[in-house]
Amino acid sequence: MKKSALVADWNTLMRTFIRPDDERTKATLIKYMEQIQFGLHDFLSEHVGITEEVSLKELSDNLSDTRISKNPEKKLADVITDLIEDIAPHAVNITSPYFVGHMTSAIPFFMIHLKTIVAALNQNVVKLETSKVCSVLEKQVLAKIHRMIYQRSESFYKKHVQNTNSTLGSFVECGTLANITALWVARNKLFPPKGNFTDVEHEGIQAAYHAHGVERCVVLVSRLGHYSLRKAGGLLGIGNQNIIPIDIDHNNRVDLKRLNDQMQEIDRDQGKTRILAIIGVAGATETGTIDPLRKIGEICKQRKIHFHVDAAWGGPTIMSEKYRHLFDGIEMADSITIDGHKQFYMPMGCGMVYFRDPHAMDVVAYHANYINRPGSVDLGIKSLSGSREASSLILDSALKIMGSRGYSLLYEHGIETAREFAEEINKRPLFEVITRPELNILTYRLCPNAKGMLSGRNSPKEIQINERLNEINRTVQRLQREAGNSFVSRTTLKILNGSNGINTVVLRCVIMNPMTNMMILREILDEQEDIYRRTFT
Amino acid sequence: MKKSALVADWNTLMRTFIRPDDERTKATLIKYMEQIQFGLHDFLSEHVGITEEVSLKELSDNLSDTRISKNPEKKLADVITDLIEDIAPHAVNITSPYFVGHMTSAIPFFMIHLKTIVAALNQNVVKLETSKVCSVLEKQVLAKIHRMIYQRSESFYKKHVQNTNSTLGSFVECGTLANITALWVARNKLFPPKGNFTDVEHEGIQAAYHAHGVERCVVLVSRLGHYSLRKAGGLLGIGNQNIIPIDIDHNNRVDLKRLNDQMQEIDRDQGKTRILAIIGVAGATETGTIDPLRKIGEICKQRKIHFHVDAAWGGPTIMSEKYRHLFDGIEMADSITIDGHKQFYMPMGCGMVYFRDPHAMDVVAYHANYINRPGSVDLGIKSLSGSREASSLILDSALKIMGSRGYSLLYEHGIETAREFAEEINKRPLFEVITRPELNILTYRLCPNAKGMLSGRNSPKEIQINERLNEINRTVQRLQREAGNSFVSRTTLKILNGSNGINTVVLRCVIMNPMTNMMILREILDEQEDIYRRTFT
Repeated sequence: MKKSALVADWNTLMRTFIRPDDERTKATLIKYMEQIQFGLHDFLSEHVGITEEVSLKELSDNLSDTRISKNPEKKLADVITDLIEDIAPHAVNITSPYFVGHMTSAIPFFMIHLKTIVAALNQNVVKLETSKVCSVLEKQVLAKIHRMIYQRSESFYKKHVQNTNSTLGSFVECGTLANITALWVARNKLFPPKGNFTDVEHEGIQAAYHAHGVERCVVLVSRLGHYSLRKAGGLLGIGNQNIIPIDIDHNNRVDLKRLNDQMQEIDRDQGKTRILAIIGVAGATETGTIDPLRKIGEICKQRKIHFHVDAAWGGPTIMSEKYRHLFDGIEMADSITIDGHKQFYMPMGCGMVYFRDPHAMDVVAYHANYINRPGSVDLGIKSLSGSREASSLILDSALKIMGSRGYSLLYEHGIETAREFAEEINKRPLFEVITRPELNILTYRLCPNAKGMLSGRNSPKEIQINERLNEINRTVQRLQREAGNSFVSRTTLKILNGSNGINTVVLRCVIMNPMTNMMILREILDEQEDIYRRTFT
Repeated sequence: MKKSALVADWNTLMRTFIRPDDERTKATLIKYMEQIQFGLHDFLSEHVGITEEVSLKELSDNLSDTRISKNPEKKLADVITDLIEDIAPHAVNITSPYFVGHMTSAIPFFMIHLKTIVAALNQNVVKLETSKVCSVLEKQVLAKIHRMIYQRSESFYKKHVQNTNSTLGSFVECGTLANITALWVARNKLFPPKGNFTDVEHEGIQAAYHAHGVERCVVLVSRLGHYSLRKAGGLLGIGNQNIIPIDIDHNNRVDLKRLNDQMQEIDRDQGKTRILAIIGVAGATETGTIDPLRKIGEICKQRKIHFHVDAAWGGPTIMSEKYRHLFDGIEMADSITIDGHKQFYMPMGCGMVYFRDPHAMDVVAYHANYINRPGSVDLGIKSLSGSREASSLILDSALKIMGSRGYSLLYEHGIETAREFAEEINKRPLFEVITRPELNILTYRLCPNAKGMLSGRNSPKEIQINERLNEINRTVQRLQREAGNSFVSRTTLKILNGSNGINTVVLRCVIMNPMTNMMILREILDEQEDIYRRTFT
């Protein structure tokens, strides 16, 4: 029998906008939330795997209907059931402690409550008139994180926390947009008014270069810098070829000698090439390593170059008294990127950028007649984005629930587990650690019959062995992912240990889920050994 | 008595990551969700007002604590209670049908359920490995909206819906980022390889201008274009002074004669100035008016200029069979901006950009070793943002629950109520409509003793009267906002009716809440009359 067709009508529609008065409807809505909270959660916990075996091809075939139905296709209850029963099983179970391949993990359940509050209030923090207290609260949270990093004086924060003319930072969607914002500000700072020239934001790159006698701007950053920096270079009109990758040292930090060499080469250009910024990476995406921030900071200070730190990953670890020292010098940064959805364990997507100078963002201010009037609290005045949700409310609440100590326990667990894991890897004859964990990220590889045997001199024989190892690691990673019980990611590094600067395929492990322990990590290695033996021997 | 202090400890922390097994904890978590859903809702409905009387000063004073507590400050229950009792009352009650000032309004309650599902799944759609089905689903939704606008053939959508090499559009955080993405693509298209020059993304603006013998790029758009277009010009390095505002006609649409004049002036420049894009506005932020899209499209087609349509507001209205004709020619656009959190009634923040050519975004592709590998499904390859949540899941579900007919009922209600409201305004001696509603937005003003009396010749006397009216409207709008019972926004227009191109302060009304009816709108006018009489007579 055919189901009775749904029809769009005004009264049904109205009911979806009004808070239900009767207890029955109320109970139904609560039941839906319960289903979402526990149905999804039950599914995710019962389902040990990371992904289902359904192929991408099959999913694609099932999701190829491109027509919008005229009348409603489904009732809310059915949509929720579908999402829980048909969509969730094919999503990635990032909450699993066996999912250690990416910077995405389980989050505390209260984060979902907080996100729901943000959605229910549905404020738009682009302007005060659609957010009021949320804009004020956002300024407070920005000051809290700014203080956590920069630790400036009480009077500094008193002056700026609610100052409508200054800006300690900005919420954006992600680390990419935070990095873009930082370099946007740095670019504009580099080209102040000169003669008839007003500024680069107004007149463009061509006019700015011309007025300042510049032919090229470059950004210097470790080869391990995030790809979003190249994107920023392209977007901002300076060209992504001018994001210059600097070689790394044996600890996977930017090689300061190479950095200096590069700067000297630029100096020989007699001012035609200008350094827009030097970037320190504080938690490299692939290796978790941290550049020598104080030393880079000193170079930048001496030469008056914008110093940006990409701490999208590592930033929050500053809260740990035990590991804060790893970030020594970060307070010298002119700008800093930190992600909320990474180590603040917030839901997707929340990036932030902070500026030491509360007036740094003045060079990217925009106004309009209907919004962002000069002198107003409107947060949209200095912001890459326009409309956006009040993510700051989630962060503010999370800081209250966790305390810096609560967060620190998570970071300390991650770092210490990663160290123990590195030892376990090196103990096994089949594996070698490639990059040791400085934070909670490490890389390693299977190296059957080759452990410790590569001299780094890259003889033809060694290159051949390395190629073979790359093939093995690529295969094992793929087969493990496809088996669906655990997930470790892979990347290709040109590291200096073992194979000397040649492409080395490595397995990458990010330990941020507090449930991930040594027992689980040993199982993951066991599975990799097993896959290797079944496939290659 | 002092409350017992909270301490961060590992076991408590762990419990926030695990799905509770005991019924009591489960019940507590459900109770919290109930509080969020109905506590907030109850508050918002009982509280007729838009904003509380608490001053910004007072809020700022209360939110000036910039220290992060070491140990937890509060339990989840207390944080939720605080948010409901202390924060929500000072947020803006955008769900009120008396809140008609901005493009933010009540949303159907199921949107909150859907947002909660997205948060609970917490997928990251930057790459397949952290999203799987959600990436596939996103491609399907993009194809649905693309088809809604462009109505290309069945075979076109079959070919592209799940094609990993082509891209019909992209989700971003907001309309601003959508407009930036569109102009980023247009900029890169404008400077193809030439001789040794590879492309502008790689080499930058300076090299691109040099290789192509260009000195300046401009974007032409009605004076009513969104301020984000200037931001895009600044960000992309072409200079925001080169976003050239074109005068409007008596219907608040771009004046085609002026547009042609501007283009002829550019032509006299013998190729040194290039038109990067012409933009059609489809639902101007201030007036809701729609540019003559087909005519602009024809100009662009003839001259091979990128045609972008900013339909952030109006876009979804295309689903209404009754009003689709207003967007005649939109399918000629090379790129289109549409916001999800506007007329798709989604929670903040969801913007989208669509491209007619499924390969248009190839010019902004980025790869890395650990992500976005060439040929993969990773949605981050062609995207301004990096990490982001699976908003597409909300839109897909909403389309199923509403059907295009359900959405259309909302648009038709808004447009028709706005028209009736315009009549009501003009009927009252104290008011005059300034811009008639083409969609569901209109502007008007109080014009005591001056209705229909301004000839538009701008004599000194008329300018003086206009100044006086501006002052009255500014004051009445502010006092009404402060009273907190209803909210109408204000902006300053240089319109051609009445006062001829001089600054005219107007009251602006956006009718998107289906609960907003004529009774409410009459009350709003009554209140404005009342405020005027109490203050000025």
